[in-house]
Amino acid sequence: MIRVAVDAMGGDNAPSEIVAGAVEAVSAKPEIQVLLVGQEDKVKAELSKYAFSKERIQVVNATEIIATEEPPVNAIRKKKDSSIVVGMNLVKTGEADAFVSAGSSGAILVGGQVIVGRIKGVERPPLAPLIPTEKGVSLLIDCGANVDARASHLVQFAQMGSIYMEHVMGLKNPRVAIVNIGAEEEKGNALVKETFPLLKACKGINFTGSIEAREIPHGGADVIVCEAFVGNVILKLYEGVGASLIRMVKDGMMATLRSKTGALLVKPALKETLKSFDASQHGGAPLLGLKGLVVKTHGNSRRTEVRNSIIQCVTFKEQAINDKIQAALSTQNKEPHE
Amino acid sequence: MIRVAVDAMGGDNAPSEIVAGAVEAVSAKPEIQVLLVGQEDKVKAELSKYAFSKERIQVVNATEIIATEEPPVNAIRKKKDSSIVVGMNLVKTGEADAFVSAGSSGAILVGGQVIVGRIKGVERPPLAPLIPTEKGVSLLIDCGANVDARASHLVQFAQMGSIYMEHVMGLKNPRVAIVNIGAEEEKGNALVKETFPLLKACKGINFTGSIEAREIPHGGADVIVCEAFVGNVILKLYEGVGASLIRMVKDGMMATLRSKTGALLVKPALKETLKSFDASQHGGAPLLGLKGLVVKTHGNSRRTEVRNSIIQCVTFKEQAINDKIQAALSTQNKEPHE
Repeated sequence: MIRVAVDAMGGDNAPSEIVAGAVEAVSAKPEIQVLLVGQEDKVKAELSKYAFSKERIQVVNATEIIATEEPPVNAIRKKKDSSIVVGMNLVKTGEADAFVSAGSSGAILVGGQVIVGRIKGVERPPLAPLIPTEKGVSLLIDCGANVDARASHLVQFAQMGSIYMEHVMGLKNPRVAIVNIGAEEEKGNALVKETFPLLKACKGINFTGSIEAREIPHGGADVIVCEAFVGNVILKLYEGVGASLIRMVKDGMMATLRSKTGALLVKPALKETLKSFDASQHGGAPLLGLKGLVVKTHGNSRRTEVRNSIIQCVTFKEQAINDKIQAALSTQNKEPHE
Repeated sequence: MIRVAVDAMGGDNAPSEIVAGAVEAVSAKPEIQVLLVGQEDKVKAELSKYAFSKERIQVVNATEIIATEEPPVNAIRKKKDSSIVVGMNLVKTGEADAFVSAGSSGAILVGGQVIVGRIKGVERPPLAPLIPTEKGVSLLIDCGANVDARASHLVQFAQMGSIYMEHVMGLKNPRVAIVNIGAEEEKGNALVKETFPLLKACKGINFTGSIEAREIPHGGADVIVCEAFVGNVILKLYEGVGASLIRMVKDGMMATLRSKTGALLVKPALKETLKSFDASQHGGAPLLGLKGLVVKTHGNSRRTEVRNSIIQCVTFKEQAINDKIQAALSTQNKEPHE
């Protein structure tokens, strides 16, 4: 049995789509139990629309809501009865194995560190979304709030990302690369130049060198290491260019009568293709390196993404990812790498 | 009359496509004279395929070639008779107004600073490509080799970029934004936080605040300011996501017999749409802030991009961009901005 606390009040489509996703998750996987955290009356009203087994979904009352625009440190400190704080406390006390939220990224990142806490030896917990590529998915690590990272942080990101891709995604010996502005070892900014030799020397990862941003959508590496500012730019530009191009393709197909006729014939096949480039198919982004699991899903998540985010917690727990992270980091720390 | 020195030996398709582009440029614009710099026999052999007026295209012999993988500082220092060094010397001595090359980015950036030289007051010359958006084009500044930039550099990028967009691209009062990981002023890494108030205080630019990477393809700003590492990631990811998606759209349309039929009908309209998202339509990237003009075109440029890159030098000279840059920076420098 795995117990997942879910923030029923977080994101643009809360609570309706969150509750729907929770119901879908427990239907899909018999080993999941969900604790829906939020304003009891609202959550129960939504739940009443569905048939489900009562012991599989419970409601945990939390009267407050942290808004996206609230300064996160303050929000976590003051809103003790918010869905995020209450949900994270369930993980801290062991009443839940994981917490899934579509709410404020900042509050989730701060709460993860302050409430759930880091695994011993982890310097910074990275936020690591899966991004679609032509070949499948890659893990982009870090996209969190840890800007101005140090080289040692990036080495840990590479280690944690490798473990995640190997044991959660089932990819043997995942290729790790660092985002750089050229393929040669001497290229890069000060941070990349400092990190490169440390990654080369790091045991237990399959480091393949630098990756230029152009190669990311092509599937050039499985674990894409970068500091959070660059990671955030990559993640958001991915969404932006994708959305713009798809919009333009659609407009282009509506341009003439001839092309409109063609569009009708092309549509089903095209939809299937573009679906594989849709990030929401791949669940949420884990915040790695915490004592427990915290998963951030898109703010605009609908039931499918919520469902997938809950389901991904199962493998994470079954594979004892946190034990593996702790073991990897403590081995590395024993061997001086400079 | 404007004289453009063109690197006949630079890029994947030299000399044939470069020479063809030069011939097209002089046919298109009567005020252009081209100096084709490279191995005389090879260049003349290519030229012999075309009819053109002899006084409009001259060949300047340069026996050496700088390869893309050569360390740029060394290459510029040692290969005195390379097409890049000879071409840049023509700009330095005033024999040419501009130099266009599809060759080694590194060598062009180093040569621009060392041979052509910076305008007085310019701290770092940024490489500033135009990137396609849903609304037209935006200037991405800096995508050069100036990694680990300081806040004062970014302020100058904003000023130079504004002048370019207003006077070369003809865009009144261009919107300037800094690439950031959130829209709020308190967001960002140390560099962005330091730069933001300086941009706010900077006279003569229309600073609109932060831009998230997601908004760039949508046309969220006209001048996109960032340091070179981030700029390089944006530029290359743009190309990468675009190429992957277009490949997937094509594959998707070939998936079934039904969609293949549709593809035939859709193709002409779609091609027209996607053309507007093709960077090669917009010429090369100027290296701004130099005493003269240096334009870097894609390494895989074909005749159209070479032609456009040569033609864009006309407006640059006619509008006296360098005088405007010098005037803007000296005004700014007189007013302490902190």
